[in-house]
Amino acid sequence: MNIEHEFETHLPFWPHLTADQRALLVSGTSRRSFRAGENVHGRTGDCTGILLVLSGELRSYFLSEDGREVTLYRLLPGSLCILSASCVLETITFDVSIDAEVDTELLVVRADVFNRLTKENIYMDRDVHKEAFARFSDVMWTMQQVLFMKLDRRLAIFLAEEVLDRGTDTLRMTHDQIARHVGSAREVITRMLKYFAAEGLVELGRGTVTVTDPEGIRALAGVDDGPGGVCPV
Amino acid sequence: MNIEHEFETHLPFWPHLTADQRALLVSGTSRRSFRAGENVHGRTGDCTGILLVLSGELRSYFLSEDGREVTLYRLLPGSLCILSASCVLETITFDVSIDAEVDTELLVVRADVFNRLTKENIYMDRDVHKEAFARFSDVMWTMQQVLFMKLDRRLAIFLAEEVLDRGTDTLRMTHDQIARHVGSAREVITRMLKYFAAEGLVELGRGTVTVTDPEGIRALAGVDDGPGGVCPV
Repeated sequence: MNIEHEFETHLPFWPHLTADQRALLVSGTSRRSFRAGENVHGRTGDCTGILLVLSGELRSYFLSEDGREVTLYRLLPGSLCILSASCVLETITFDVSIDAEVDTELLVVRADVFNRLTKENIYMDRDVHKEAFARFSDVMWTMQQVLFMKLDRRLAIFLAEEVLDRGTDTLRMTHDQIARHVGSAREVITRMLKYFAAEGLVELGRGTVTVTDPEGIRALAGVDDGPGGVCPV
Repeated sequence: MNIEHEFETHLPFWPHLTADQRALLVSGTSRRSFRAGENVHGRTGDCTGILLVLSGELRSYFLSEDGREVTLYRLLPGSLCILSASCVLETITFDVSIDAEVDTELLVVRADVFNRLTKENIYMDRDVHKEAFARFSDVMWTMQQVLFMKLDRRLAIFLAEEVLDRGTDTLRMTHDQIARHVGSAREVITRMLKYFAAEGLVELGRGTVTVTDPEGIRALAGVDDGPGGVCPV
């Protein structure tokens, strides 16, 4: 598929661009491929540009000074990522890292071209900021639960203990029951379990949670950390 | 000043609203006053609506389960706050608390009216999401530094030690010097010092940092916490 056709398929604001704007967008775009595990943005400090995922999967995460990673979100085919353009979008004041999770094909739009077009076209400006805001809102939720409430750790501790007590990796309990055990709300537990599932720690079934990565769960729970493991963040 | 005139002054999208849209916005808006320290949003679970600050100051913060607060941002006169409308804006998936820092006068727009108008008017939709995205970007920075990097704590430890060593609350050093001491970058230290100043912990002068709340700085540094105080978050 050529670049123009990819844009037509994936960008809701494409019909609102003028012929000149479309031509500029296409001319400022290149196709790139990344291997599984390769870093796409954030480690070199380069100005990567805006990303449109064509195939594969990207993972966006915070990297702490001591090397701990917190996944912020995953980008599947059709997703647009503007955080990798913090160099020119003055509203972005922080940096994330982005890796290819599997072999991934991307379109990369030069940040200056993107910036100029959002200034010219209100539909593009609106769609981009609305999408970015929605993504941010999800990220805030994750940050709040993981870093502030330490819900990920509490949930991991509970799952690790249940697996040990019951002698099976498949736990038969509802999200509501789990929520009452860890002192949270059902909706919150459902979202955190989905986050765990996306990280490959558990598999969710009908009325069941199966721990697929017991070592990962124990590490998150701090069980293997010895007496010093009370402060995983 | 009447509500219409306040909107004309503060809302960049006001000229782009039709007469009907303006009338709907005004009819869905009420004026409210809050005393210093009063909770404006977040503790009762009510659907507050969108806020426009006319005078005074609001503080938006996360409240942890154990009662710790992290200030996300401050809203000064002319600021619009949409996070208090999470009840109707489906893009907002988390909750913040908002208090009046001093006696504060607000306009409160009913969330359903606001929601309907952003669906109808692309200028309003664009401006609101652009503003929200910029605010979020700042919040992410704070969250990352405070919760993930613990930079607030590292900086507080450094300031507390310097005050003790030098026997004075006014430290003569540049942000660059401080950055090298705590292992960070100058821009990052400048932002965190501004955050400390907004929290009333320090006062910033030309080439000086004055600790105005030594007890607050020591509490943040964990100095008064005894041997267990290594994990303030």
